[in-house]
Amino acid sequence: MSKKILSNQEVKGMNDWLPEEFFIRKYIFSKWREVCLSYGFVEYLTPILENAEIYKAKSGEDVGLKELMIFKDRGDRELAIRPEMTPSVSRMVSKIYSSSPKPIRFFSIANFVRNEKPQRGRNREFWQLNCDIFGDNSILSDLEILTLSLDIVLSFNPPKDSFVLKINNRKLINDVFSILGVKKDKEVELIRLMDKYRKLSKDDFKSLVLKCDIKEDSFNDLLKFLNSKDVSSLLSDFPELKNSEGLKELSDVFDRLEKIGFGEYIQFSPDVIRGFDYYDGLVFEIFDKHPDNSRAIFGGGRYNGLSEIFGSSSFPAVGIAPGDETFKLFLESWNLLPNKNIYNNYCYLPLLSESLSEKVFLLAKKLRKDGFKVEQGLSVTKIGKALEYANKKMIGSIIVFGEDELSQGIYKIKDMKSGDEKIIKLNLNSHE
Amino acid sequence: MSKKILSNQEVKGMNDWLPEEFFIRKYIFSKWREVCLSYGFVEYLTPILENAEIYKAKSGEDVGLKELMIFKDRGDRELAIRPEMTPSVSRMVSKIYSSSPKPIRFFSIANFVRNEKPQRGRNREFWQLNCDIFGDNSILSDLEILTLSLDIVLSFNPPKDSFVLKINNRKLINDVFSILGVKKDKEVELIRLMDKYRKLSKDDFKSLVLKCDIKEDSFNDLLKFLNSKDVSSLLSDFPELKNSEGLKELSDVFDRLEKIGFGEYIQFSPDVIRGFDYYDGLVFEIFDKHPDNSRAIFGGGRYNGLSEIFGSSSFPAVGIAPGDETFKLFLESWNLLPNKNIYNNYCYLPLLSESLSEKVFLLAKKLRKDGFKVEQGLSVTKIGKALEYANKKMIGSIIVFGEDELSQGIYKIKDMKSGDEKIIKLNLNSHE
Repeated sequence: MSKKILSNQEVKGMNDWLPEEFFIRKYIFSKWREVCLSYGFVEYLTPILENAEIYKAKSGEDVGLKELMIFKDRGDRELAIRPEMTPSVSRMVSKIYSSSPKPIRFFSIANFVRNEKPQRGRNREFWQLNCDIFGDNSILSDLEILTLSLDIVLSFNPPKDSFVLKINNRKLINDVFSILGVKKDKEVELIRLMDKYRKLSKDDFKSLVLKCDIKEDSFNDLLKFLNSKDVSSLLSDFPELKNSEGLKELSDVFDRLEKIGFGEYIQFSPDVIRGFDYYDGLVFEIFDKHPDNSRAIFGGGRYNGLSEIFGSSSFPAVGIAPGDETFKLFLESWNLLPNKNIYNNYCYLPLLSESLSEKVFLLAKKLRKDGFKVEQGLSVTKIGKALEYANKKMIGSIIVFGEDELSQGIYKIKDMKSGDEKIIKLNLNSHE
Repeated sequence: MSKKILSNQEVKGMNDWLPEEFFIRKYIFSKWREVCLSYGFVEYLTPILENAEIYKAKSGEDVGLKELMIFKDRGDRELAIRPEMTPSVSRMVSKIYSSSPKPIRFFSIANFVRNEKPQRGRNREFWQLNCDIFGDNSILSDLEILTLSLDIVLSFNPPKDSFVLKINNRKLINDVFSILGVKKDKEVELIRLMDKYRKLSKDDFKSLVLKCDIKEDSFNDLLKFLNSKDVSSLLSDFPELKNSEGLKELSDVFDRLEKIGFGEYIQFSPDVIRGFDYYDGLVFEIFDKHPDNSRAIFGGGRYNGLSEIFGSSSFPAVGIAPGDETFKLFLESWNLLPNKNIYNNYCYLPLLSESLSEKVFLLAKKLRKDGFKVEQGLSVTKIGKALEYANKKMIGSIIVFGEDELSQGIYKIKDMKSGDEKIIKLNLNSHE
């Protein structure tokens, strides 16, 4: 045995979830899952490792190659830990797409790794819900993903005005690019700059944009676009957009969201771009309005072209990817996390006498059958010590079962909060 | 965009879980979780990556270094994907051990990767339940882990005589080793050979054992030990074991398991060793008795020494680690898997007329609030096509809501199996 002493700390940027923390993550994941199921989605999972090449084919600067954890297996194949789900699920769906009834509504809750510098809301290992509709290119699937996103947030009962759904459309951006005369080979770079518009200083933004062969006039038009407040003012600023499909989709989405009762949550936001290159229609972000946590909670959009890399005919796709860290920050900022008393609905069954040890096993068996979460005492304790232990762990209730109770043919359940006791008839049978 | 066409197959030895497969895994995990919770355990999770050194410190040949997926992060640290949970959870518990009420009952359900050749019941990525009691060294915690293991299997309602719990004790093996005069430096090697006793040919086993400096006489005694059928016959073969602590523990465990009603499932099995070096007391395996799947379903044991590598004072630990693949093989062999009709409790709400599209959103919203899993139609369909779609996907029920129903102020829920229809009054409100 090695005598070297090792650190008991986690790898940097990754976190142990002790039960109190697990409880919170589980709470978040359960709500996510519940809403996805209520929308008729079904759950899947893909492997933690993928051939590294699927990330090299088409991605975005959000997941650059430098952020991939890559290594070689025994067959000298380059494998990578998944940094996002979209390439994996596109790969998986491409295997079954032609034989499946459409649309396909899939979701998963899985862990991912990016080899990047940890920062607030961004860990090296993180968990994400991925929820996508494949095989439908209508405005109604855009709408479904948007209402699902809103229902996910609303399921946590946030206060009024705590968040906003910012909506944009990549096709509209392309149409604006033609108006501005943006060169084809500068589009990707310009889109990435626009994604950083709110983060860069005005001067930096301008000088970087001008480097993309954008003229001063066009730059001013770009600023005008990025600061548009609503779809109608956009049309008066850019009459050339009259026939823009992106603008038509946007108006339609706003119109329908109003009609089905989500009007109060939505806002046209031309500066919402999303970091991934594969988006090609609707893009959106749910944004926390709390002054201390002014940031995107999560986003999503349409990515019809991605499946091409797997050789199947291209199929339409629209989806979202909320992450655990940013979602938790939102819930924290509005005080929406559940209280952490994880043993609240547990009960403690102490061993009050050595002679009772088999009987205590049988009683635990019976109580478990009745649906109790029973923590059984493993060494003989006095009742005072037992109550102390249950108090310290904040266990919901304690079972009192000693020699006295045995001779009376009973046991007692004591609620640790109220102090109420219930007396129950003992009925043990080892061969139930 | 790259035009190269990529394979849509998974990395070798790893599997996509399409929803039908996910449904089965989830079924297994839910039962595992349910039993652990009923025993008063709480759930945790550790990161997917660990510093590689924690696997180098103490392991066994089950997870050799050659099976680790190791790579370097940007800080040039060697990281490994976890190949098992025990070192991680020992690391995590060592952080909180001294400040926590004991015993600590922790479980997790997580994924692991081993860079090995895939074979039946053994994938490169797999999922495991890890369920451990830390901080108690009594026979009662051994017993709790054993009954929990049995209850996990029993929760799937297996037929009588479908499995057996094989029990052994590493301390007993050590005592037998002193009787046989095994040299200290040969113990690890000999234990590994004993672990393979049923797999090796008699001749191979003998010649390998003799290479461990074992004399012919001692070899025959070893065979006698490995073929002992019960604890009492063991004592007549080896009277020197009268004071063996391992034998005492074993007898005690058998005695108590009988008394609390688990006698029919248990068997003393001196050839059950378990591959990990860190076991140092109770070891056991639950074994499938199906002739087509005669193999261990899972196992566990006591490993009191492992925590030492993290510098905390050594703490007692006993636990189990059922894996998804082998557990599924057991359920398959006895036909205990649930049927795969995953859309059984879903309902389909087709869009029967373009003019209804907002109303359909509102109806879906209402139905979801009432607890339905609603798959909403995204393009206009005739009712005949809609029924065909629901049939093909085996969706449980369909909502009939067309112009006629709207004018009557109703909608219908039709059960797709029985054909029964329920008529329900329409009551839509966009601002509920």
